[in-house]
Amino acid sequence: MRDAFHDDLDAIGQMLVDMGEMVRRSMERATNALLNADLALAEQVISEDMQIDNVQHELDANTLNLLARQQPVAGDLRTLVTSLRMSADLERMGDLTNHIAKVARMRFPAKAVPFELEDTVREMGTVAERIIAKVTHVIMSHDLDAAIQLEKDDDEMDKLHRKLFMALLDDSWSHGIETAIDITLLGRYYERCADHAVSVARRIYFLVTGEYSTDLA
Amino acid sequence: MRDAFHDDLDAIGQMLVDMGEMVRRSMERATNALLNADLALAEQVISEDMQIDNVQHELDANTLNLLARQQPVAGDLRTLVTSLRMSADLERMGDLTNHIAKVARMRFPAKAVPFELEDTVREMGTVAERIIAKVTHVIMSHDLDAAIQLEKDDDEMDKLHRKLFMALLDDSWSHGIETAIDITLLGRYYERCADHAVSVARRIYFLVTGEYSTDLA
Repeated sequence: MRDAFHDDLDAIGQMLVDMGEMVRRSMERATNALLNADLALAEQVISEDMQIDNVQHELDANTLNLLARQQPVAGDLRTLVTSLRMSADLERMGDLTNHIAKVARMRFPAKAVPFELEDTVREMGTVAERIIAKVTHVIMSHDLDAAIQLEKDDDEMDKLHRKLFMALLDDSWSHGIETAIDITLLGRYYERCADHAVSVARRIYFLVTGEYSTDLA
Repeated sequence: MRDAFHDDLDAIGQMLVDMGEMVRRSMERATNALLNADLALAEQVISEDMQIDNVQHELDANTLNLLARQQPVAGDLRTLVTSLRMSADLERMGDLTNHIAKVARMRFPAKAVPFELEDTVREMGTVAERIIAKVTHVIMSHDLDAAIQLEKDDDEMDKLHRKLFMALLDDSWSHGIETAIDITLLGRYYERCADHAVSVARRIYFLVTGEYSTDLA
């Protein structure tokens, strides 16, 4: 039987899952806004970032409230502290999708991403979305196999990131410095977003097992 | 009269101050390594990043331990949770100084920063150091005026960051794409480091006053 405290803990878990789903959708839209120079969609991502921040504030307030009222020990205490950290990671991931949308807005009506890099950036967006969906699943299910798999998805992101740099450094690069700056920053936003997701997966792994995963090291 | 619990709280505060000082020194060395193409110094920054991580792990373990053993309420609970967040900010600031050192190492024996941008980068390093020293002082003293001043220092950092971009985008830029990528990323590392310091100042402000500073908003 569940008591009220564990219902409250579950509610916090559900808010983390909600945040994950909001970030995934924001990533999807930001990438579409970027690749299609879709100003309205970019503005939507930017204005909806506040919603992610609001969920974080509510989640953190509920968590602090539970810490204060229930004075949990051991596993429950660790769950609550980990929740605070995961919400910070997810909030930051939302910021990064927001940064991607801002690049789209800044270059509108032009496209920020040159034609020959569109596929690579689209793939980075797809990998980022997959990683975010997976980490949301991990938060919900504590599925450790999926947590470990995240590392492989992150390797894929790193590969795409390197591919982006190789294109910038190729002698045939003809898009000038401004575009090179945009691509450098965009690459970093996608990569950092994946890094934060891996960090969430590590926190869950540690929460469940009490050990650091060597695969997630 | 102080009880053992408050001595433990003070010890955690002292560890945060120690982390701040480690990060400031690391920033100083990373900037010097970068501007002088000093490989030994860059390696030192990179290897010492682990020390900052270790202090964070110890600090977080002590904080969790206090949370579990003492079951603090209200102000003390808020202090402990804020400590966890500040240690995460400081750890990330250490990562960023590490990234700066890695750019220095990657370009060695060449200098990563072109001659005409050395002054701007040096100034970014100086402002970053000042911000880190100030935030360390704020952690120690809860000096709210200093916390608010941090926002001005951060404005200065933003100005320098823009100056860096203007130089990259100037028609006279003659250093090619690779250097433009390095400068773009370096600018971001300095700026993010300052952002995290402002975030620590905001946490202290909120901890002391229970309100969000409009100046630090």
